[in-house]
Amino acid sequence: MRLAFLGFGNVGRRFAELLGGPYGEVLRARGEKVRVTGIATGRHGLAIDPRGLDLGACLARVGRGESLDALHRGRPVPKGAFLDRVPADVLFEITPLDPRRGEPATAHCRKALSLGLHVVTANKGPVAFAYRSLRGLAERKGVSFRHEGAVMDGVPVFNLVERCLPGNRIHAFRGTLNSTTSHVLSRLAEGWTLSRAVAEAKRLGIAEADPSNDLDGWDAAVKGCALANVLMGGSVRPSEVRRRGISGLLPARVRRDARQGFRWRLVVEGRRRGRKIAVRVFPARLPAGDPLAGSGGDAALLLETSLVGTIGVLEGGGTIDQTAYALFSDLLAIQDLLREGVRRAS
Amino acid sequence: MRLAFLGFGNVGRRFAELLGGPYGEVLRARGEKVRVTGIATGRHGLAIDPRGLDLGACLARVGRGESLDALHRGRPVPKGAFLDRVPADVLFEITPLDPRRGEPATAHCRKALSLGLHVVTANKGPVAFAYRSLRGLAERKGVSFRHEGAVMDGVPVFNLVERCLPGNRIHAFRGTLNSTTSHVLSRLAEGWTLSRAVAEAKRLGIAEADPSNDLDGWDAAVKGCALANVLMGGSVRPSEVRRRGISGLLPARVRRDARQGFRWRLVVEGRRRGRKIAVRVFPARLPAGDPLAGSGGDAALLLETSLVGTIGVLEGGGTIDQTAYALFSDLLAIQDLLREGVRRAS
Repeated sequence: MRLAFLGFGNVGRRFAELLGGPYGEVLRARGEKVRVTGIATGRHGLAIDPRGLDLGACLARVGRGESLDALHRGRPVPKGAFLDRVPADVLFEITPLDPRRGEPATAHCRKALSLGLHVVTANKGPVAFAYRSLRGLAERKGVSFRHEGAVMDGVPVFNLVERCLPGNRIHAFRGTLNSTTSHVLSRLAEGWTLSRAVAEAKRLGIAEADPSNDLDGWDAAVKGCALANVLMGGSVRPSEVRRRGISGLLPARVRRDARQGFRWRLVVEGRRRGRKIAVRVFPARLPAGDPLAGSGGDAALLLETSLVGTIGVLEGGGTIDQTAYALFSDLLAIQDLLREGVRRAS
Repeated sequence: MRLAFLGFGNVGRRFAELLGGPYGEVLRARGEKVRVTGIATGRHGLAIDPRGLDLGACLARVGRGESLDALHRGRPVPKGAFLDRVPADVLFEITPLDPRRGEPATAHCRKALSLGLHVVTANKGPVAFAYRSLRGLAERKGVSFRHEGAVMDGVPVFNLVERCLPGNRIHAFRGTLNSTTSHVLSRLAEGWTLSRAVAEAKRLGIAEADPSNDLDGWDAAVKGCALANVLMGGSVRPSEVRRRGISGLLPARVRRDARQGFRWRLVVEGRRRGRKIAVRVFPARLPAGDPLAGSGGDAALLLETSLVGTIGVLEGGGTIDQTAYALFSDLLAIQDLLREGVRRAS
């Protein structure tokens, strides 16, 4: 199985490192062989090698700030032609996302699917903005479109419902899915100012350089749409989400409520209303013990199901390794489906 | 696919009701047909009908306190010969359990597997006391042994690890899995006495008539062994668990800690220690926001994994419907495996 990476930032590099370690061991134990035949980066050039790139060499070059171009085999490939030219079975779409438009990730996914590649993305954009059309395209092309990393990193959310809750309809969900606001609200409860808490979140790498997408609830809205569209069969766009961020929340109030045993969290909720699905994002005052009121940056999601009541999943931490695992579990799922398909066809 | 029930208490009856409703719809949508060819009860006789029993009639008779014997076809079957005589593919083992010995559930599972039946149980006993031997027997016979309901009812725990966390080793787990103690400790925090809280738990059907197995941590220990043996490849017996219950806990202390934002919970923990797995049960004082410090009778389980960090699952409520779904999801899993097997063989 030939893999191509579009984007080679922290997640892609960690995935590549782990392919050389524990992921490789798991693949060997399953009797699977993979090679990476192409990597296209934003700032470190690109390389295609049909015989398989040396990932250690790729990681070393990018680590030293050098270009991958030197590892390329064959005639030069302009960046825009990477997908047309890379000889691959699976594309890992892991470019930086513009969360306001869901691009360029959505365009990358669409092009790769139309070329007949399986697509794995850790980006929430394609799932929030274009799930139905991408899924339809994948079905017509007979390939997979997988996106476990779009919500809660590698914690199984989409796979959980697909593989472990057969027969259930999801009536509603409720989650704390944005780690910046959870972290900031925990700090406000301790008496910090908003600006100091945000500065710390940036320094720890929890928040982006511009954290406004987190603070105003846009990130949570995009994730809410991803959940509504995949788990509940909706077609909700982020612009349709009723959204209130945490900036209007008074730090003194957060602190006072904390002393009385309440925690504030930015909650995203999806619920069926007749034939439509309403998604909203809002700051909520939660009693201690509410599963969504977990500590620090932990993420939590509750699902109301038709057959098995309310069940929840939690992510402790939220590290780059957890996002890398999302890509890996999607790769394994594609291999499972291909094996089943071969069996079915034989 | 022919199903037989050994035991027909609350869980079995709810499962039978749902087979006639939403479960039946799911099965029809999947193109599966099932019929129940035998039911053996503790106090309402037994009935075998190779053409399929009328579940509505069975439920009505048992609901009126009448025996199922009147619905039996063919020559009489002594109770001990039910498994030998019932023409079935899958046995649902849902008899009342003696949690101190894991019987008679374990013997029922062993006999059914040795007769070549797939076995589904909602009893924790067989998994805690005899997992390795039952699993080995199932493998030799080419059938399935499934037990999702043994821990956290229908919330996917065993299926989650098997189907959604491929490649991961479980290093440790930590959970609040006994709803009686969670309920009682929540009441102690509110200032109730132990005896009043226990009486309420009995009245609500959360606790058994004799709640000592809950209060002294035995129930949690049995569940901890089930997790250690299945998820971590251990072979720990409940008698080997280091176990402390909640009876020694001073209600005044629980109340005082609650005012300071701490909650007491009975925690079960499993952890690798060299080549062994140590399981222990103990009352723990948890900070508000700890995922195990959820409200009321909610159950929670955290898994420390090798590849995807710490992830958790939660069960809201804990109703009979959730236990029934455990049986149903195991049935669907058996059907999936059979389809795959047919494909592999063809």
